[in-house]
Amino acid sequence: MNKPFQKVDRSRFRHEHLIGIDQLSAEEIGIILALADYYADRLDEKSFKPDILRGALVMSLFFEDSTRTRTSFEVAAKRLGADWVNINIETSSVKKGESLLDTVQTLYTIARPDAIIVRHKEYGAPRFIAQHVSCPVINAGDSWREHPTQALLDALTIRRHKGDLKDLTVAICGDIAHSRVAASNMILLTKMGANVRIIAPPLLMPEKLPVNGVAKFTSMEEGLPGCDIVMALRLQKERMAEGTIASEQAYFKEFGLTPERLALAKQGALVMHPGPMNRNVEIADEVADDPERSLILHQVRNGVPTRMAVLDLLLKNK
Amino acid sequence: MNKPFQKVDRSRFRHEHLIGIDQLSAEEIGIILALADYYADRLDEKSFKPDILRGALVMSLFFEDSTRTRTSFEVAAKRLGADWVNINIETSSVKKGESLLDTVQTLYTIARPDAIIVRHKEYGAPRFIAQHVSCPVINAGDSWREHPTQALLDALTIRRHKGDLKDLTVAICGDIAHSRVAASNMILLTKMGANVRIIAPPLLMPEKLPVNGVAKFTSMEEGLPGCDIVMALRLQKERMAEGTIASEQAYFKEFGLTPERLALAKQGALVMHPGPMNRNVEIADEVADDPERSLILHQVRNGVPTRMAVLDLLLKNK
Amino acid sequence: MNKPFQKVDRSRFRHEHLIGIDQLSAEEIGIILALADYYADRLDEKSFKPDILRGALVMSLFFEDSTRTRTSFEVAAKRLGADWVNINIETSSVKKGESLLDTVQTLYTIARPDAIIVRHKEYGAPRFIAQHVSCPVINAGDSWREHPTQALLDALTIRRHKGDLKDLTVAICGDIAHSRVAASNMILLTKMGANVRIIAPPLLMPEKLPVNGVAKFTSMEEGLPGCDIVMALRLQKERMAEGTIASEQAYFKEFGLTPERLALAKQGALVMHPGPMNRNVEIADEVADDPERSLILHQVRNGVPTRMAVLDLLLKNK
Repeated sequence: MNKPFQKVDRSRFRHEHLIGIDQLSAEEIGIILALADYYADRLDEKSFKPDILRGALVMSLFFEDSTRTRTSFEVAAKRLGADWVNINIETSSVKKGESLLDTVQTLYTIARPDAIIVRHKEYGAPRFIAQHVSCPVINAGDSWREHPTQALLDALTIRRHKGDLKDLTVAICGDIAHSRVAASNMILLTKMGANVRIIAPPLLMPEKLPVNGVAKFTSMEEGLPGCDIVMALRLQKERMAEGTIASEQAYFKEFGLTPERLALAKQGALVMHPGPMNRNVEIADEVADDPERSLILHQVRNGVPTRMAVLDLLLKNK
Repeated sequence: MNKPFQKVDRSRFRHEHLIGIDQLSAEEIGIILALADYYADRLDEKSFKPDILRGALVMSLFFEDSTRTRTSFEVAAKRLGADWVNINIETSSVKKGESLLDTVQTLYTIARPDAIIVRHKEYGAPRFIAQHVSCPVINAGDSWREHPTQALLDALTIRRHKGDLKDLTVAICGDIAHSRVAASNMILLTKMGANVRIIAPPLLMPEKLPVNGVAKFTSMEEGLPGCDIVMALRLQKERMAEGTIASEQAYFKEFGLTPERLALAKQGALVMHPGPMNRNVEIADEVADDPERSLILHQVRNGVPTRMAVLDLLLKNK
Repeated sequence: MNKPFQKVDRSRFRHEHLIGIDQLSAEEIGIILALADYYADRLDEKSFKPDILRGALVMSLFFEDSTRTRTSFEVAAKRLGADWVNINIETSSVKKGESLLDTVQTLYTIARPDAIIVRHKEYGAPRFIAQHVSCPVINAGDSWREHPTQALLDALTIRRHKGDLKDLTVAICGDIAHSRVAASNMILLTKMGANVRIIAPPLLMPEKLPVNGVAKFTSMEEGLPGCDIVMALRLQKERMAEGTIASEQAYFKEFGLTPERLALAKQGALVMHPGPMNRNVEIADEVADDPERSLILHQVRNGVPTRMAVLDLLLKNK
């Protein structure tokens, strides 16, 4: 029932870290996705226990809490047989006035892990950390800039449903300005030959995009026609200046992904959302829960195999 | 020195989940207790490492913190060789306005665990969760309704000291109204043929009992004579409306389990408490610490083997 | 490249617990350090996975948060193949008015661990706990009294750079009064034949020292000449009465370890700090970051092998 594994040439993947999609070539993205596909196929087999990281230690270093992403990496590491040490700096006393560099060097030197998973609210923190440790660093989200494993799992999800990313038209809708998911997706999809659109109200539209060739729209009615994939984004109220949106109801009225709006896209267009959802704010229940159209739980499910692939490539290539 | 293991017929245990004692037959309770007894006997043997869940992943999903119960399940899972992922929703950002269903489906879909251990303050949450995931769900306490593994470990403790539950007279005393432990115990003990009494001041006496045949008393002096087992309950001040009790001293005066009151029960009657204790509120130090009469640390010790038995039955029967 | 392992006679190490350096003989300290040295040498070998504690369970019981120390013990336990259960009482609901004894007996009885790692702000809590459980207890810091594994890793660090502790002159500088690290170090270094000095402003100088033979100085200029090792301590502002120091700047001016001050010590004198550092309060950046003089990251690195040695000795000797 599983597809035969399309053998990947690991030697063509040449990075020590995964800091952002912007560092990857289309070929390298393809290598990660092929390996992720392999893991996704085998995840339901009870007898599939690839202990390839037995004896390795993976350390999470989360300066910003995230149960979902942390759990997804933790399960990926454990499924590969690695040990896991969880460090949540937000709630830790490591701070005590210490600099980021001292904190990171200390924790790295204590644990001497084989990989570090970093989430940080500051732009560039994962790269900074990667420059000061001697093991692979994986960015699990920094500021509003990049969340590369999310973009990879989104790409895996699209590929598993559409076969290929090339020449698809994908609309990313809503709170683009505050979304690292949107940024990483714009870069990845563009590199893989998709046509990318973003649709947002002016106040949620970023001034500068991370990549060229993305088409901007300020209404769903204009942006959706012709789309194969419609990706709604979480409205990140916690990051917004007051008054950015009039109300959730007003937002839903203008930008909520309803069945009527979805009907403007291509017939059979598929729906994505990185979660957690604000139901009936950026997406209507009927759309989120439509098993024929919604890929949302597929995205969630593809997190572990994607992260297994990234850990596998970065740790086994060393 | 160990008793020969009384072979249980696992095929007679037919549940996919453990939501409440109310779902179990007396025979099924007997199967769990026989297996728990087996694990309890072997827990001190250094060489006893039953790796029967090697490769399995057990996920805790605690919407209400509980170090004791969580630790007991975690140790049980690890002693059986399973991996463990700990999710404490109370302190997590998963909330962000997400519905219970979205949170649970997301975390289940990320981790694809082999079992989920749930604690939730809302009535019925574990059953609701069980309906939306494809793995065994074990209720680690919901609202004031059920805490089935506590009742099972209490039954194991009684059985290991009295041989059988049948025809014993058991008094459950104190804050019955707020106690899921009391509820699960009333159901289990009644099913197993014990005579159950509850003793509480009127304001802590529930209007409706979860099972028929329980005798109600409003004074210790009336309720204790003839009892084989006296189970004191934690006074759950954090769940009480103000004014429910006059003061802790007044409560102790009227309902505290003192040596004098214990002397009203049968000679050699044994004492239990699910912990954590409010010493000298619901139970006097001399009673709690009497090694001849108090089973309290035996209850604590029996938590891991009971939970090993439950995990074993639910996961190996699949 | 590794030194041949100097075989230690484990039978000469006779303690069940590690509560303080004060309980250890010089010979016993030597046994721990020899074993720690062995682990430190092999930590970089990928193939070195001494699974000597496979099947054992190590439980942390931290009544005071400490990410560094907890992580160091956790990694040490996992590198030896043990399971780990983390209990952070500070953030737990175990408290609910329970006594320390009830909490400890309950958690010990639930988990039946093979070792407990304790941190507590109260003097003597680790010894008290050791008296009430049936497994080795390791003090990970209590009050201002002892932090024995820190002193052992400091000694290991010195030994690996200077060959021997005997006859070295070591100055411990700064906030002596609030420092369990200083206390444990004074005891250990004195036992091992080093000459120990403490340098502190009068308000940070303890009235009573834990050991005889330590020379007191109230100025860096007087205390530093002739020293082989200068150990700066973290200024523990969170533990100080207001007004103890005029300002951080004033403190740095008088007691900060600057390159100029370090030049007063012996030529090539080495610098230590237990971390986390207040940079440019008790130590200048140029000193902390001088790779020729600063042993600070070596101290951090030596934490895991030292704790592996302690776990090894206490658990394998049983």
